[in-house]
Amino acid sequence: MNIHSYPSVLLEEAVREFARLPGIGQKTALRLVLYLLKMDGQAVASFSNALIQLKNQVKYCKTCKNISDTEECNICSNPKRDAGCVCVVENIRDVMSCENTGQYNGLYHVLGGIISPMDGIGPGDLFIDSLVERVASGQVKEVILALSTTMEGDTTNFYIYKRLKDFPVEVSTLARGVAIGDELEYADEITLGRSIVNRTPFEDSLKN
Amino acid sequence: MNIHSYPSVLLEEAVREFARLPGIGQKTALRLVLYLLKMDGQAVASFSNALIQLKNQVKYCKTCKNISDTEECNICSNPKRDAGCVCVVENIRDVMSCENTGQYNGLYHVLGGIISPMDGIGPGDLFIDSLVERVASGQVKEVILALSTTMEGDTTNFYIYKRLKDFPVEVSTLARGVAIGDELEYADEITLGRSIVNRTPFEDSLKN
Repeated sequence: MNIHSYPSVLLEEAVREFARLPGIGQKTALRLVLYLLKMDGQAVASFSNALIQLKNQVKYCKTCKNISDTEECNICSNPKRDAGCVCVVENIRDVMSCENTGQYNGLYHVLGGIISPMDGIGPGDLFIDSLVERVASGQVKEVILALSTTMEGDTTNFYIYKRLKDFPVEVSTLARGVAIGDELEYADEITLGRSIVNRTPFEDSLKN
Repeated sequence: MNIHSYPSVLLEEAVREFARLPGIGQKTALRLVLYLLKMDGQAVASFSNALIQLKNQVKYCKTCKNISDTEECNICSNPKRDAGCVCVVENIRDVMSCENTGQYNGLYHVLGGIISPMDGIGPGDLFIDSLVERVASGQVKEVILALSTTMEGDTTNFYIYKRLKDFPVEVSTLARGVAIGDELEYADEITLGRSIVNRTPFEDSLKN
């Protein structure tokens, strides 16, 4: 249903702003705006200020391009992390996903997207040159490619692999296999096939 | 999954503000905030300003309590609308739903909720006294009760009916029946039963 009878221009304006966000339609936007309207003025001000402050003050780490409050993010500047290992991810959310596993102790490199000719995104639009520079500086021993297993992800993986192959650096990719908790019956053949080929010693599975 | 590794305090703050909205969890909030972060500064400012302006400047119509940019809303102040008919609704969204039908030419009265002892909402928390005053002023010929058909809606309907029954005003309620497009098989018995009892001349159905 299209909403065409807003009782107030201000309301309509606020709903239109909210409906620009991804996954938020006009009806959801109206519900959210009316909810904000019921909150007290202080709460609405703090909501708005949080957004403006984030937009105006946020920085991107000069090394890994992750969001940061400082020049260098708290992962890159942490001396306890292994600076010899760099995990290449598409975006900030992927950094957070990897961090949430608690299994990784190296650094990251955020590309800011993946190569996608359909969307007009080429290698020049991504932070690939700065990745090559990091590798060229000599400190990096291993680059882990942790991009999506889509055609775009594979293309980007291959492009980065080609750019790095003359440097003395190991390039690895995430293990692919049947997810923990998945039933074999429902795993797709390619994943299952690859997980058979790349089978691991049973004793290793006891460690985690 | 709980997100516990925000790379930036500002980001975490903005996500927390978004996640206070109904139906928005932490993951959705993060997605929305990162989307806003990609928009240009002007767009984020206009998003925030729309909310603050709405909160600071919005008024509620002195007569019907609908949201309005002016003292009296553009429905109440429209001389072409039938001031003798008042449709009682729970909230602003219901006004918009009724307006969208294009079938109603009277005025509204927004209660601001319904009587719900479970939530601690009594008649005194709603704009019922002001409805009684409107009726007492003598201009209103008919009050249409258009509340939800829940126990709370029925309670509120009955309470308003009792408050109005000594005034020379007709109190009606929305027609209940099988929705247009519904299959009889799936209609509940109460709705179907009432739609048999309140059957209408076939010729009337040809008019709409």
